[in-house]
Amino acid sequence: MSEQQFRVIITSHDSLCVGYLKAAQLILGVEFPNVSTLPFEASSSMSDFEDAMRKMVEQKPLRPLLILCDLMGGTPANVATKFMLINKQIKVVVGVNLPFILEILLHQDSGASLLDIPLDDVILSAKNSVIDIRSLMKGCTMND
Amino acid sequence: MSEQQFRVIITSHDSLCVGYLKAAQLILGVEFPNVSTLPFEASSSMSDFEDAMRKMVEQKPLRPLLILCDLMGGTPANVATKFMLINKQIKVVVGVNLPFILEILLHQDSGASLLDIPLDDVILSAKNSVIDIRSLMKGCTMND
Repeated sequence: MSEQQFRVIITSHDSLCVGYLKAAQLILGVEFPNVSTLPFEASSSMSDFEDAMRKMVEQKPLRPLLILCDLMGGTPANVATKFMLINKQIKVVVGVNLPFILEILLHQDSGASLLDIPLDDVILSAKNSVIDIRSLMKGCTMND
Repeated sequence: MSEQQFRVIITSHDSLCVGYLKAAQLILGVEFPNVSTLPFEASSSMSDFEDAMRKMVEQKPLRPLLILCDLMGGTPANVATKFMLINKQIKVVVGVNLPFILEILLHQDSGASLLDIPLDDVILSAKNSVIDIRSLMKGCTMND
């Protein structure tokens, strides 16, 4: 593993972030030592949560960091954005789904740098992966 | 709660589906008795998983059902699609994110029927919620 491999924090309301990582590990069959999860739980105060994220961010402040959040406007995304605004090494993407996370983790595992990842393309690909299956199949027959 | 309220199954690799429901409950502050979760775990066989989904589907076979899956092509989505093909009451959406799930659960909670939900619009809204925050802020200043 490269010393310069970028880090990923997945953060969310409750244990959704842990679920993302577990699902990715099950599908890809590998561990991701440079991926951390940070749940914002019902019992957390916003300042405790901010302190916890600060500790994670400051662990390796010079290494590029991608923070993936469950949705815009929630505490996880708001706190992540706060750190992004004071640290140019940090990028934040909100509203992630599993296809997005898989693609990011595959890039990370391949040794790509955060700057090399075509983030717009990965986001477009994540958007295209939200599909109504019945609508997709409309017009098809079982013999197609 | 209406007897005709549609049901939702959230299914995924590992506990991601449980994470979605817990995050939604934390954000919206309500329980969702007509939402079930079905994790496909490392220890599950595909036939056990299919049996478990069959039991959920057959519980109320005439009530409309929306099955939300983590991603296209995985076992959860493939098994859900199999049931969709033999039951016209079932719709399947894959690649969901938390904003999508929140919007669906709010529709369900409001008593909307599954047919009344503008699924294309909810999907478009979910797609628009995947955002690179640094890119969004590009060109803005802190005084904007």
